[in-house]
Formats: sequence, structure tokens, C-alpha cells
Amino acid sequence: MASEGGRTVAHSRSTVVRLMVPSDANFMGNIFGGTILAEVDRVAFVTATRHAGANCVTASFDRVDFIAPVHVGDLAEFVATVTFVGRSAMEVWVEVRAEDLRGGPRRLVGNAYVTMVALDDDGRPRSVPGLTLSTDAERRRFQDGERRMAVRRETRATGPAAPARS
Amino acid sequence: MASEGGRTVAHSRSTVVRLMVPSDANFMGNIFGGTILAEVDRVAFVTATRHAGANCVTASFDRVDFIAPVHVGDLAEFVATVTFVGRSAMEVWVEVRAEDLRGGPRRLVGNAYVTMVALDDDGRPRSVPGLTLSTDAERRRFQDGERRMAVRRETRATGPAAPARS
Amino acid sequence: MASEGGRTVAHSRSTVVRLMVPSDANFMGNIFGGTILAEVDRVAFVTATRHAGANCVTASFDRVDFIAPVHVGDLAEFVATVTFVGRSAMEVWVEVRAEDLRGGPRRLVGNAYVTMVALDDDGRPRSVPGLTLSTDAERRRFQDGERRMAVRRETRATGPAAPARS
Amino acid sequence: MASEGGRTVAHSRSTVVRLMVPSDANFMGNIFGGTILAEVDRVAFVTATRHAGANCVTASFDRVDFIAPVHVGDLAEFVATVTFVGRSAMEVWVEVRAEDLRGGPRRLVGNAYVTMVALDDDGRPRSVPGLTLSTDAERRRFQDGERRMAVRRETRATGPAAPARS
Amino acid sequence: MASEGGRTVAHSRSTVVRLMVPSDANFMGNIFGGTILAEVDRVAFVTATRHAGANCVTASFDRVDFIAPVHVGDLAEFVATVTFVGRSAMEVWVEVRAEDLRGGPRRLVGNAYVTMVALDDDGRPRSVPGLTLSTDAERRRFQDGERRMAVRRETRATGPAAPARS
Amino acid sequence: MASEGGRTVAHSRSTVVRLMVPSDANFMGNIFGGTILAEVDRVAFVTATRHAGANCVTASFDRVDFIAPVHVGDLAEFVATVTFVGRSAMEVWVEVRAEDLRGGPRRLVGNAYVTMVALDDDGRPRSVPGLTLSTDAERRRFQDGERRMAVRRETRATGPAAPARS
Repeated sequence: MASEGGRTVAHSRSTVVRLMVPSDANFMGNIFGGTILAEVDRVAFVTATRHAGANCVTASFDRVDFIAPVHVGDLAEFVATVTFVGRSAMEVWVEVRAEDLRGGPRRLVGNAYVTMVALDDDGRPRSVPGLTLSTDAERRRFQDGERRMAVRRETRATGPAAPARS
Repeated sequence: MASEGGRTVAHSRSTVVRLMVPSDANFMGNIFGGTILAEVDRVAFVTATRHAGANCVTASFDRVDFIAPVHVGDLAEFVATVTFVGRSAMEVWVEVRAEDLRGGPRRLVGNAYVTMVALDDDGRPRSVPGLTLSTDAERRRFQDGERRMAVRRETRATGPAAPARS
Repeated sequence: MASEGGRTVAHSRSTVVRLMVPSDANFMGNIFGGTILAEVDRVAFVTATRHAGANCVTASFDRVDFIAPVHVGDLAEFVATVTFVGRSAMEVWVEVRAEDLRGGPRRLVGNAYVTMVALDDDGRPRSVPGLTLSTDAERRRFQDGERRMAVRRETRATGPAAPARS
Repeated sequence: MASEGGRTVAHSRSTVVRLMVPSDANFMGNIFGGTILAEVDRVAFVTATRHAGANCVTASFDRVDFIAPVHVGDLAEFVATVTFVGRSAMEVWVEVRAEDLRGGPRRLVGNAYVTMVALDDDGRPRSVPGLTLSTDAERRRFQDGERRMAVRRETRATGPAAPARS
Repeated sequence: MASEGGRTVAHSRSTVVRLMVPSDANFMGNIFGGTILAEVDRVAFVTATRHAGANCVTASFDRVDFIAPVHVGDLAEFVATVTFVGRSAMEVWVEVRAEDLRGGPRRLVGNAYVTMVALDDDGRPRSVPGLTLSTDAERRRFQDGERRMAVRRETRATGPAAPARS
Repeated sequence: MASEGGRTVAHSRSTVVRLMVPSDANFMGNIFGGTILAEVDRVAFVTATRHAGANCVTASFDRVDFIAPVHVGDLAEFVATVTFVGRSAMEVWVEVRAEDLRGGPRRLVGNAYVTMVALDDDGRPRSVPGLTLSTDAERRRFQDGERRMAVRRETRATGPAAPARS
């Protein structure tokens, strides 16, 4: 957890900027939400794997609201930060911002919490290094993350939880 | 809503099967969660646009748990169904199943609720046809969807809701 | 063949819907025929592999006429059905329909017969399960398929059959 | 047709070599037939558009036999030649060869005849230049092409020609 | 140039991290040099367009040495910095580093200077803001860049400079 | 080198034509320089691997000037020729031409020298066949290539050669 001998938040923070091109968009020039989520997952994977020093898989995405539209020609920036680590699970917070590449304000587009789990070479969960917290904001986010992780564990979907098909 | 003159659930239900190939996976052969979510978004877009008869954009993804791993060589099946419609918003339920293409059981991999909004040609929300409900299961899902939509509206993230950066 | 202990036609029937995007089209917005054929091959592969429970390769495509144009923004639907099975070869019939996603009639775009062959782990042809026929239409299509397969065997191209280069 | 003032066969002949990579193949390393056909269509499009000096669309693919397997790491070569021109239609012959890039014989993999039609800016068929024939082989292929085109016209699929669904 | 009213180096500096996947590599797992250069160009385009507030095109790449191999499973990081600006041209320096995502040292892979030119809406060169220099290193790099730009202008290839074909 | 028992220049010369589509371009329809360079690298890889009969990697790109713009809808042609071979290194010259597919002159777009190195199965440099020279132009290019290779060896970047970061 936030133990000695862990890795800092800065060690694994990762940034990606990506230009939105026509193949990311529908026929009206609106970027698909799925394009954004796929990039969120990739940068969360990079950050979790850097923290763990091991292969990781996605366990869950918390709810994601798309709070502003993204268009072809926008530059999207994804910043991924580890906010909480458990035994083998890590919570990664990804902020998404977009700006018209030729000028105009940079706006918050969305915000996602992704839970990643580290795996050993046989594909079983393995333990990850603790997270060394350096600032008050990191400590506050760690506590918030711990609380969210507890809620996720209680409400996690399993096979039969899906609504019955008629 | 569930009004006269609407469209049936069957009218817009859409299915996609897609073979998982190496470029969908990380270096251990695990399919990226983002690959799955991108496909979920695409099939939800197809279903919503078919129901609305208009271009749609993704407003939000509810929390998604990946309840079973997916590997290269698996066939993933995505079935998208409109469960609830409001004035311009539609809730689309996407079930994801995977099977080893050469045999073995088909397993539930994940389950997602996507909110899509119909847009007019100027990019503003426009009203959508009602949903004609034919079975008890469709009616029950409509009521559940209405409840979820009310919760989403109250808790929807907006710009300043993201945790402050330090 | 149509033996006891086989698999039904419904067991392997597969459907894919796919939105046509600008990277599928030439500079005038016409979808490339090759885009359609690549998708036809993929869904035929899925259906043949599901029927055989084994890896498959494409042996031939019968002539394909593109009887109506497809455009960016269209939704194309591919339905693949096993119509005939021999010892290691299967005939898969793929129907392609397209519709403007925002409304308008769904039209037949093309129609293809693909011959797929099941392979063992050393890459040699292996036998496939018989096809259990349940309806008169399935029986009629099986007989038609048997006849087409006999014609194909007689007229199959081999290395020297190509016209000489000058 | 083979008139004065036309363009030579050499004017539009086009060649593509392309390395077969894992994303072109199924999970056993066999290149999808559809990958080959998509490339055949692209090079036929280039050749037809060069001959016509106008945008073209694919009208039909004749039957294609895959007479030798192609694998990841192979280099595939596609050579497209106009063999016959009508008023707005052109027959393009595409030969496909493959070789292991690190050595070994180059082998004929397949052979395709693609019919392309030139379009004006409103999407209607427009006339194309004649084909200037320079060698006996070109003249023989032109006559063969004329015969094949006549057969295609008689047997061309139209909407209702597809077998009825049960 | 380094004028008043310009933009800082930090304003346009851009970073991309990208995981190297099998479709970026040849059949031995070596990442293609062209994959790296394509990413270098994209991040240089982002940085130049951010500085210029206008669309940009690539005018030239200086010589690029690949000083260490990159493999599938590596994480490559690209950092692009404007080092010099002329009237409409900008020199962008891109450093490329790679690390095995699961641990191991981060190593310098390559280093590129890309010249980008800003264009107006008619595709003609347009002037760009000056570069505000804040540190001694930025000033030294600006002078070095000015010298390189002068050399490039004298030695720039034009049509007939290519070796004659026999 | 130019020894007996080598392979001719014609043995490995390779040509690729590729249609430029919207996903190759920025939002103004200008093809990315990186798209061109990625294709240059691929065709140089094909030519070098054909000459060597072994896997190759890119060691360096000489400076590349983009002497004419390329647009969506253009057909780009890449011709790769081995000009010089050392013990394990080969110089490959790639000429890039573009033409509007619907007519208009073919123009020289760029010109690149790529150094490729042959590797054995353990990833170490291995020797390559000599180059059999048949024409005066091939002999002149070989001598020019030998001179360029000597310059490259002296000025090759190594890790610490990059400008220091402040």
C-alpha cells in the first residue's frame, strides 16, 4: 500500500497526446466515445504496468461521463496517475482534455477511474509495490481511492448478475 | 417513451461478432479492455442511430466489470438492445460474450449500459421515437432503465467535478 | 455430410454489422469492393471454424457481383450460413445488405459463396462434422451446394491455368 | 475499345508488393483470403482509374481460387493489367504471387479478374478511353476478355437472384 | 524569431508514450524504423501546430540514426520541442527513448530534427509567432538550430537533384 | 561487395504503389510526412531482405526533403534499389513519386537513402551477398554509395551525442 520501499506516483505517471483523425469519428465528425475509452485503457495499462513492473489486465472501468464533445482536428491529451494500490489491484485515474490544435481553450472532456490487476507469468494475480505518497493531494486521493475500491469489491458484477434475457 | 407510434426493441437490436486478433492484445495475449469498450461503443452507436433515425453521440458509459478474460483467437459477440428512451437520450444495454472459436463454452465477459443522445444537423439534442414494448422482460427493463437514468442525471459529472490537481 | 451426429445450420450461423467509415472508401465516398470482400471472408471464416471446431482457410470465392453501391455512413450487415459440407470443405453463403443508418430501405448489396477447408494442427485438411438439416430450404440449399461443389472441383484453377505472360 | 487514340496496356499496369504481417492472418499464421482480395481490389482500382482518368467502382469479381497458402513473413506481389475495355467497364486481370522473403521460390497464389466501371462526378457510368494493343498476347487477352464480359452480362446477379431465405 | 510577444518553448512541448505491439514489427519482433519515424512526425506536427496556431506540413527530416533496437512490448516515449523558428519554418527536435515496460533501463533510441512549415488556408506558407527563450539551454539550442537551418537551405534537394536513372 | 557470385540490382528492386486515403492525412488533406517515411522504410526492408535472404533492421535514414506536397487521392509510387553493399550493411535508395490518380503529371516527391543491416537468428549482424553491377549507372551509384557509407560511419550518432536537456 502506501508502504516504505514503494514507488512514487511520479514514477509511473504517463501522458499521451493524440490527434483526432477522421477514422476516429462517425460520419458527422464526432469522435466515438469508444475511441476515447480505448486510449484511456491503453494509457492506464502503461501506467499500471510501469508501477507493477509486470503485465496487467483491466478489471473494471468506473462510470465515464463525456462532458464535452471532441471533434476531428482536436488534440486529446490523456494523463494517467496511480491513485491507490491494493495487493494486486491498482486504481488509475485518467484525465482527458481536448483542444483545437490551431488554438482555442483546452477543455476537460472526461475523467475515468480504471482498475488494473497485475498478473504473473501464469496469468494469476501477483502483488505489486506500494505507493510512496509525497503530497497532501496524493494522500487525499489515496484515501478516496481506498474507499472507492471497497465499494467496487462489494458491488462487482459476476456472471449471473446480468438482467435475464427473455 | 413507451408511447404509441414508437419503434420496437427488435427494430434496432444489433449483433456483432468479431475475432480477437494479435493487434487487439497486449504482449501476453490478453485482449485490452479498451478494445472491448471500443466495440461496445460502436454497436451501441449503431443501435441508437437505428432507433433514432438520426446521428447519435455517447453521453456516458456506466461502470463496466470485465468478469472473464478474453484472449487472441476468441470470438467475441456483442448484442446491443435499447432498454429505455427519454426525450433525446437512449439507454443501450450491450452484452459481451466470448468463446474459443475452436470449441469450448461461451462465457459472459461483460455487460455495459451506454447512454446515447440523438443530435440534429446542427449538433443539438433532438427528440427520438418512443419504444414499443412487447414482452414483460422489455417492460421490466424499461422501468429499471428509467430508474438508472434518473440516478445518472443527478450524479452526472460536469467540468469542475474532477479532483483538483496538486 | 447431412449425417447423424452433425451440427445444425443454426449452430454456426454468424452475423456482423459494420458501419462504413471514410477509411473504407475511395476519395469519392464509394466503399471499396475489397472492403466488403474482406468482411465477407472474415464472417465466413468465423462460421466455418464454428462448424468445424477447427482452424479453417479460404479455398475459393465464387463470382461476386456488387449489385448496389455502398457509401460512407451506411451500415452493412453480413449473414453467413453453412449450406453444404463435404469431407473437409464447407460451402458458406454470405448475404450482404446495406442501409443508410439514419433511415431508408435496407437493400441487397451482394451475395457470395465461399469455400472454406478445415485444417489440422500440421496444416493438412481434416474431416468436419456433418450438417444436420432442419428445413426444406436448408435441404434444397444443401443439394444446390453439392452441385456447385462438383462444378468447382472440375474447374478449379491450378498453377499453369493462368494466361501466359508475354 | 481497341481504338485509335486510346491508352496502352503499359500506361496503367500497376504493381504492389506487400509484406504479410500478423494482423493479416488468423491465429495459425494463415493469411486471410480476404486480406488478399482487398489488396487485389485496391490494385485493380488503381489500374482502372489510371486507364480511365476518372473515379472507378468495382462491379464484380470473377471466381478466385487460392491455389497455394500464404503465410506471415511472405512477400505478396500483385500485378494488375487492363485486358479489355468496353464503353464504361474495364476488365482488370490481377496476378498474385508470394515468396518467403528470406528466400525460396516465388509461387503463383491466385489469379483474379475484376470488372471496374468508371463514374462521372454525379456517380453515373462514363465512357473510358480505348485500349491500344501492342503485342499478340495483349490482342489474345482482349478477345478472351470480350468473351468473358459477354458471359458476365448475361449471368449478372440482380436483387431477386439470391436464394430465398426460409 | 526570439522576439517579444512570442510563445515559450514549454507552450508547445508535447509528449507521447506508445506501447510497441506486434503490428508495428517485422516477423522477428524488431520494430520497423518507419513505425518510429511515423510517430516522430506525428508528435512534431502536434508541437509545430501548437506553436504556430495553424496547420503545418513536414518540409524535411534530418538524418536519423537508430542507435538501439526497439522490440514488441517496449514502451517508446517521444518528446518534441521547438528549438528554432524562422518566418514560416520551425525546427522541432524529437527525442525517442524506449524501455521494457516490465522493468529495465530506459535507453535513448534515436534523435530527430524535423522541419515543419506553417500554412494558411490556401496552402501557402504563413508567418509564425516568435519563440520566447527562458533558459541558457534553450538559447544555445536556438543558435544551433539557426545554423542547421542555414545549412539545410543551401543543400535542400530539388527535383533534378536525384541521381539519374539508367 | 561488387564481387562474383553476388546478386544483381534487379533481383531485389521493389515497387509499391499506394493510394493516399484520408487516414494518411491531417485535417487539411495534406499527407503526413511520416506516412511517406513509413512506406519508404517498408519497401527498403523488402528490398534489403530480398538481397540478403535474411531478416534486416533499419540502421539509419539520411536526410529526407519533401520537395512537393502529396494529397488525399494521390497515388504514390515507391521504387527501392540496392545501391551499395558492405559486409552486413546495405544502402537502399528509395524514390517517391506521386500523381493525381485521375490525371496530371507524375512528380518527384522525395528521395531517401536508407541503411539496412542483415541479422542472423540471434539478432547479430551477418554478412550479405555481393552486388553484381551490370550498367555504368549502377557502378557510379555503387561508388557514390561507398563514399556516403564512409561518411555515415564517421558521423554516426551514439547515445551521448544528443544535445543535453536542461
